[in-house]
Amino acid sequence: MKGLYFVTDRGLCGDKPLADVILQAVRGGATCIQLREKEVATRFFVEEALRIKALLAPLMVPLIINDRLDVALAVEADGVHVGQEDMPYEIARKLMGPKAIVGLSVETWEDVERAQGLNVDYLGVSPIFATPTKTDAKEPWGLQGLARIRAFSRHPLVGIGGLNASNAEAVVMAGADSVAVVSAICAAPDPYAVSRELAEIIRAALTNRGLSPI
Amino acid sequence: MKGLYFVTDRGLCGDKPLADVILQAVRGGATCIQLREKEVATRFFVEEALRIKALLAPLMVPLIINDRLDVALAVEADGVHVGQEDMPYEIARKLMGPKAIVGLSVETWEDVERAQGLNVDYLGVSPIFATPTKTDAKEPWGLQGLARIRAFSRHPLVGIGGLNASNAEAVVMAGADSVAVVSAICAAPDPYAVSRELAEIIRAALTNRGLSPI
Repeated sequence: MKGLYFVTDRGLCGDKPLADVILQAVRGGATCIQLREKEVATRFFVEEALRIKALLAPLMVPLIINDRLDVALAVEADGVHVGQEDMPYEIARKLMGPKAIVGLSVETWEDVERAQGLNVDYLGVSPIFATPTKTDAKEPWGLQGLARIRAFSRHPLVGIGGLNASNAEAVVMAGADSVAVVSAICAAPDPYAVSRELAEIIRAALTNRGLSPI
Repeated sequence: MKGLYFVTDRGLCGDKPLADVILQAVRGGATCIQLREKEVATRFFVEEALRIKALLAPLMVPLIINDRLDVALAVEADGVHVGQEDMPYEIARKLMGPKAIVGLSVETWEDVERAQGLNVDYLGVSPIFATPTKTDAKEPWGLQGLARIRAFSRHPLVGIGGLNASNAEAVVMAGADSVAVVSAICAAPDPYAVSRELAEIIRAALTNRGLSPI
């Protein structure tokens, strides 16, 4: 998991169709899409996920489903992202199989320590900064918390929470391999331009850290 | 699917723990339990379903999960019940496998005709009567609508919606093999007594129709 990671929020997209926003994010340089739906019926979620998968597959961009293993299995998504209140990681891995991408959010240091023994594909470090997008979020990690996790964890780290073009570089320099963005793309008048700017900042920062940006 | 089918509603149970209400319903004669949760986090749903499964397994009463295939797969439930806005039936069957119980709600005559070609284990005829439990329900079938479905369908029928001791006999006589009850059990001061009364009414009516009550 490396680069710009776009997490959807239908409510923040205004009158822009979600599929259009996703396509613009990918054209701008997003390397991973997480479809997050908390309000819609299962059937709608499945149909939407099928449409987005058809969109992403030819572009070789993985589709990750937030929380809902049933939807991920139904559409054969590339992976799932689970939080601490979602499906337990071990069950998610068992149901998705060894090849799927399974990401796990860590909100406390206890979560980080527990994750060390798990074969997760990445940790979602959540939230880096306070954010209005996720109202049930715990205390922000800040850049120092992120750096502490980087020093300890064996897993790739995806920062999330309050991230945008003004802080993406600092987040990568503090240890994130990937920067997850929600409202900075969803709510932007031009999601393509914002994504391109973000992807460029992240690429440059990864190179600065001596990491391959791909 | 035959007899008294209890569909849970946590909100209607008041201060009675859901597991207690379920146990009382089974002791009273319920032959199937459907766990329906629309508001809780996935992890809580999984943990609750595991507890209820452990309760029901020794009693040989099947546990059906409403809508959420992820939870059903995670706890290896006996089956799932899907509505027309839930996981499409074919995907539910594929994910759950041929041995699982998969029930499908029918809300329109079109649904009934489409279901004739599907290997569902039962049809949930919903709603029989108007009910405050399910606010997004379609036009009630009534006893005549139920009888029309009975004359047409090859599947066992589970009536649901506004059912209680005052109308359970009429619902079985009109063609239901099973009577699904929500609030009449959840909201009862004595769920055991209500379940026993309902189970007895249903048993007598099935016998009256010349059907084995077991």
